[in-house]
Amino acid sequence: MPEAVETIEGWYALHDFRHINWEKIRQLSPASRQEAIQELAREIEKYRSVAADQGSFGLFQVIGHKADVLFLHFRPSVDALLTLETDFNQLRLGSAFPQSYSYFSVVELSKYLARGLTGEAMRTALRPRLEPQIPDRDYVCFYPMNKKREGQDNWYMLSQDERRELMKGHGMIGHKYHEEVIQIITGSQGLDDWEWGVTLFSNDVLGFKKLIYEMRFDEASARFAEFGPFLIGKRIAPEAFIQGLEAGAMDAP
Amino acid sequence: MPEAVETIEGWYALHDFRHINWEKIRQLSPASRQEAIQELAREIEKYRSVAADQGSFGLFQVIGHKADVLFLHFRPSVDALLTLETDFNQLRLGSAFPQSYSYFSVVELSKYLARGLTGEAMRTALRPRLEPQIPDRDYVCFYPMNKKREGQDNWYMLSQDERRELMKGHGMIGHKYHEEVIQIITGSQGLDDWEWGVTLFSNDVLGFKKLIYEMRFDEASARFAEFGPFLIGKRIAPEAFIQGLEAGAMDAP
Amino acid sequence: MPEAVETIEGWYALHDFRHINWEKIRQLSPASRQEAIQELAREIEKYRSVAADQGSFGLFQVIGHKADVLFLHFRPSVDALLTLETDFNQLRLGSAFPQSYSYFSVVELSKYLARGLTGEAMRTALRPRLEPQIPDRDYVCFYPMNKKREGQDNWYMLSQDERRELMKGHGMIGHKYHEEVIQIITGSQGLDDWEWGVTLFSNDVLGFKKLIYEMRFDEASARFAEFGPFLIGKRIAPEAFIQGLEAGAMDAP
Amino acid sequence: MPEAVETIEGWYALHDFRHINWEKIRQLSPASRQEAIQELAREIEKYRSVAADQGSFGLFQVIGHKADVLFLHFRPSVDALLTLETDFNQLRLGSAFPQSYSYFSVVELSKYLARGLTGEAMRTALRPRLEPQIPDRDYVCFYPMNKKREGQDNWYMLSQDERRELMKGHGMIGHKYHEEVIQIITGSQGLDDWEWGVTLFSNDVLGFKKLIYEMRFDEASARFAEFGPFLIGKRIAPEAFIQGLEAGAMDAP
Amino acid sequence: MPEAVETIEGWYALHDFRHINWEKIRQLSPASRQEAIQELAREIEKYRSVAADQGSFGLFQVIGHKADVLFLHFRPSVDALLTLETDFNQLRLGSAFPQSYSYFSVVELSKYLARGLTGEAMRTALRPRLEPQIPDRDYVCFYPMNKKREGQDNWYMLSQDERRELMKGHGMIGHKYHEEVIQIITGSQGLDDWEWGVTLFSNDVLGFKKLIYEMRFDEASARFAEFGPFLIGKRIAPEAFIQGLEAGAMDAP
Repeated sequence: MPEAVETIEGWYALHDFRHINWEKIRQLSPASRQEAIQELAREIEKYRSVAADQGSFGLFQVIGHKADVLFLHFRPSVDALLTLETDFNQLRLGSAFPQSYSYFSVVELSKYLARGLTGEAMRTALRPRLEPQIPDRDYVCFYPMNKKREGQDNWYMLSQDERRELMKGHGMIGHKYHEEVIQIITGSQGLDDWEWGVTLFSNDVLGFKKLIYEMRFDEASARFAEFGPFLIGKRIAPEAFIQGLEAGAMDAP
Repeated sequence: MPEAVETIEGWYALHDFRHINWEKIRQLSPASRQEAIQELAREIEKYRSVAADQGSFGLFQVIGHKADVLFLHFRPSVDALLTLETDFNQLRLGSAFPQSYSYFSVVELSKYLARGLTGEAMRTALRPRLEPQIPDRDYVCFYPMNKKREGQDNWYMLSQDERRELMKGHGMIGHKYHEEVIQIITGSQGLDDWEWGVTLFSNDVLGFKKLIYEMRFDEASARFAEFGPFLIGKRIAPEAFIQGLEAGAMDAP
Repeated sequence: MPEAVETIEGWYALHDFRHINWEKIRQLSPASRQEAIQELAREIEKYRSVAADQGSFGLFQVIGHKADVLFLHFRPSVDALLTLETDFNQLRLGSAFPQSYSYFSVVELSKYLARGLTGEAMRTALRPRLEPQIPDRDYVCFYPMNKKREGQDNWYMLSQDERRELMKGHGMIGHKYHEEVIQIITGSQGLDDWEWGVTLFSNDVLGFKKLIYEMRFDEASARFAEFGPFLIGKRIAPEAFIQGLEAGAMDAP
Repeated sequence: MPEAVETIEGWYALHDFRHINWEKIRQLSPASRQEAIQELAREIEKYRSVAADQGSFGLFQVIGHKADVLFLHFRPSVDALLTLETDFNQLRLGSAFPQSYSYFSVVELSKYLARGLTGEAMRTALRPRLEPQIPDRDYVCFYPMNKKREGQDNWYMLSQDERRELMKGHGMIGHKYHEEVIQIITGSQGLDDWEWGVTLFSNDVLGFKKLIYEMRFDEASARFAEFGPFLIGKRIAPEAFIQGLEAGAMDAP
Repeated sequence: MPEAVETIEGWYALHDFRHINWEKIRQLSPASRQEAIQELAREIEKYRSVAADQGSFGLFQVIGHKADVLFLHFRPSVDALLTLETDFNQLRLGSAFPQSYSYFSVVELSKYLARGLTGEAMRTALRPRLEPQIPDRDYVCFYPMNKKREGQDNWYMLSQDERRELMKGHGMIGHKYHEEVIQIITGSQGLDDWEWGVTLFSNDVLGFKKLIYEMRFDEASARFAEFGPFLIGKRIAPEAFIQGLEAGAMDAP
């Protein structure tokens, strides 16, 4: 039986993609609207001001019909994420931000990265990767993926050596782009509908395209990768987001 | 012709996943809302107080866009489940809890577990597994699955011996995790869209991930498993759930 | 070229699955509501009182999110079914019963069953099966299915002898359950999205599971069957259904 | 490289499938409703009275949940179809007839049918097929389809001779049914989501089933056909349709 | 490892497909409606009057149920597209134009086209293709596509020579139609759900069909192409579009 590589898990992630229903926001009276927007602003402020050892948060405008905005949360526990999501839904503006997609996963590193360390020493050494802050880059790209199990192209029937060899080529391409594109890999086997989530950050959207295009010719992707939807967003400061809501909603007749 | 392994069936299960429409709850006048929430509280109290030989019930908050809450019922008859579901839909708050997903299945054990017992003796010995109480764990993971029937990877064309051998490896992994993760397997051939439902319970969500990740390298999963959606929830006490509804709905302007 | 087995067709079937929107029912004033429910009651009474040579009708409560109720009609003509469906949609409560799924098909028997009879003699002999009354059983199971056409598993590339041989094993399993489970096979090639509809009736829901589970190991299913959604219902008398509507709708504040 | 058979194109087709939202119709005041229904009646009258060299039109009641009504238009230009569709959507009752499905394609004949004719002589000879009037039959069956490109079953990798041979068998079955079932083949490569649309007309719905069932055993279908949804309708005279709307909408309390 | 061909990227593209909800437009009072339509007209005027080195814009009426209108934008930056989309959604009529589909991609040319040029010289030579103006043709056809990775038909496992050879045949067909059909290829690996977007422009819709039909017999398509939805539109001048909105909305009772 092929042996599973051991993994090290860090913070949990909730990728919370939502639409903005401008009509619902405008239907509020000006006073209620202002109050409701302020309530939302305070909630988002709570996300942003989370202590660095208690989580991290990024807010992104999403392009296209699949979503309008992404609330990206990393937290040490599922409970914290559930509370964030439930609290948001209960906001006065909650119904104006219906969820269009979401992904629940957990930061996952390969044991190879531990380089012999174990226990707390290992966690300390790997902390920046296990408990990631949102990188200070302009754009985000998220997609979930599987390793295929189809006929001759069955990742999980390969030996550990074959998998290691294939992942090595894969890793070399990732490394080539490591300054241009920062990636956070989260595992979601047993947690959501795909096996992994991939979240990329870059100051140049073309970086996403070039990295993924080059990887697709790598056998690990060419034969074995199965991709879900791709979602692209641009980082927006909470203040600018709230100002946009106020301005956009005020346009109503 | 490959021979089917005989199965022993226990209680029926309804996994009833619903969204919460906070807007509908808030649109009620404060008096109606309070009354409607109390009506819901009484209904949930009925679920919880079901006699231990008449069923069991668990309430879970669900993470992500696929659902907000899971009402998990085990009952000795389909009729009891149908009544529960219909009664819930007719509650004043029924329309504020639209179903987003559901799964109908029945607890299923392999005859191997009977170890030679038959009839009432067998049912008595297996009762705790056939008529399961919801384990006292914090988290639930539910997913439906099939055994593949694709080209060379056709589970139902294997001989009984081959299937037994494959399931043995599978079972060993399950056993390795049996303290960390409690599982209830329900069969749904002819009852719902997949062949089985798997419901896992653990105090650590990572237990779900590790178990399923390790199993995926097992040939029984690697070549033959086909998975539906994965849904993750956190157990919540009915009182806390009702209080959350009251508090959340009161926030309205 | 493989030769098609000739078939004999009987009544047309409409499996009309609908949700119940309790909110819409309650929004009516008590007087309008009572009138609208009575109108629906009269419509359903027309279905039930159809002459035995003009059709048959069954009403079922459906479990899970896929539907709440099934109106199952067999009629000698498509026109009769279209009229039933259109009339229902135009009822005052029509919009409170949105269709969630449906299936249009026609009772189909294999020519083998004619045992040499032809024309009217054949139809007379087979009438009970061609023009089926809804069996007096408590539960219904409906699913549509195809015979696969994938690579080596292509039913329609088999010779007539191979298909006959495979169907014989299939039939033997069906026969083993013939007292426990009554089945009506309807053909839908050219009529709806799958090739056949299967409607099973039993006093025990487990009968559906056991029959389908055992069949899945039969090569005709294992290699060649492709299944659509499975829907399970419990027969309900029209009076009880109408009383349930009245009681459920009256609960409104 | 396999060579594409040349095709001859005729009129464009829009299969415009819509639901009827009776609630929206009833919500209008009786006077507005009557006016809106008359506006719709005039629009449909325009469709029907199109000059025979300018297009053709058929109106059909559709069975099942996929649609309630089909507006079937053939026109010499895309522009004419776009205008029809846009005008319909702008009718006062437009929002009461939401589109549930549609198909855009163009009548397509094989060059074989030209028997050596070219240019205007060819078009004149083939005009009745290139510019089809809706056959005077009671029922319609529509489905879109592809030729498969999967592994060994790749239609587009066959030689022209192989394809011709396969289509000959196919054509013979079609010919056998040519009195019972009239077919219009429309091409939609580059125009809509499948490669072809097939529209069948018959006075007997069983004709659709028998034709398609027999064809499925033909290698051209068995190995190479991929089918989309099947939709079945019954022709209805515009006057009867309008009367049905008036009567159905009047039933409101 | 097969080597990826290098690509040159130009402007970003947003294909923004939307429905028109006439009911929402009509629900506005005549004065508000007129104001809202004028606001939309000013927004569209901004799109059209974009400087030729800052972007290009086309407006198209779309046939069928998949969309009613396409706003096609090319811009030098993702930010510009995000702003356009967000601003549109915030228009008073934004909620009357719900997005039904969209595609985010970037103009992509093969390095072969550079013919040895590099840097600014290359960009200058290729500018008309990298920064495309919407061709002055009547019709548009958009579809996304992948190169397959299935068993033996895995594009990304071919050598660069094999791919080049296959693309040569492909290119020859494209060239044959280059007067009739203008094409803009955009890459979307890592940006949206398919690998490429193809946008075709022609004065004759049949040009789309003939080009795509002929290509499908080419091995590059026959074995390796996987297609998404096809959407067809007719160019409409902004003034005509606004007049249509005014006239259509005024028809209300």
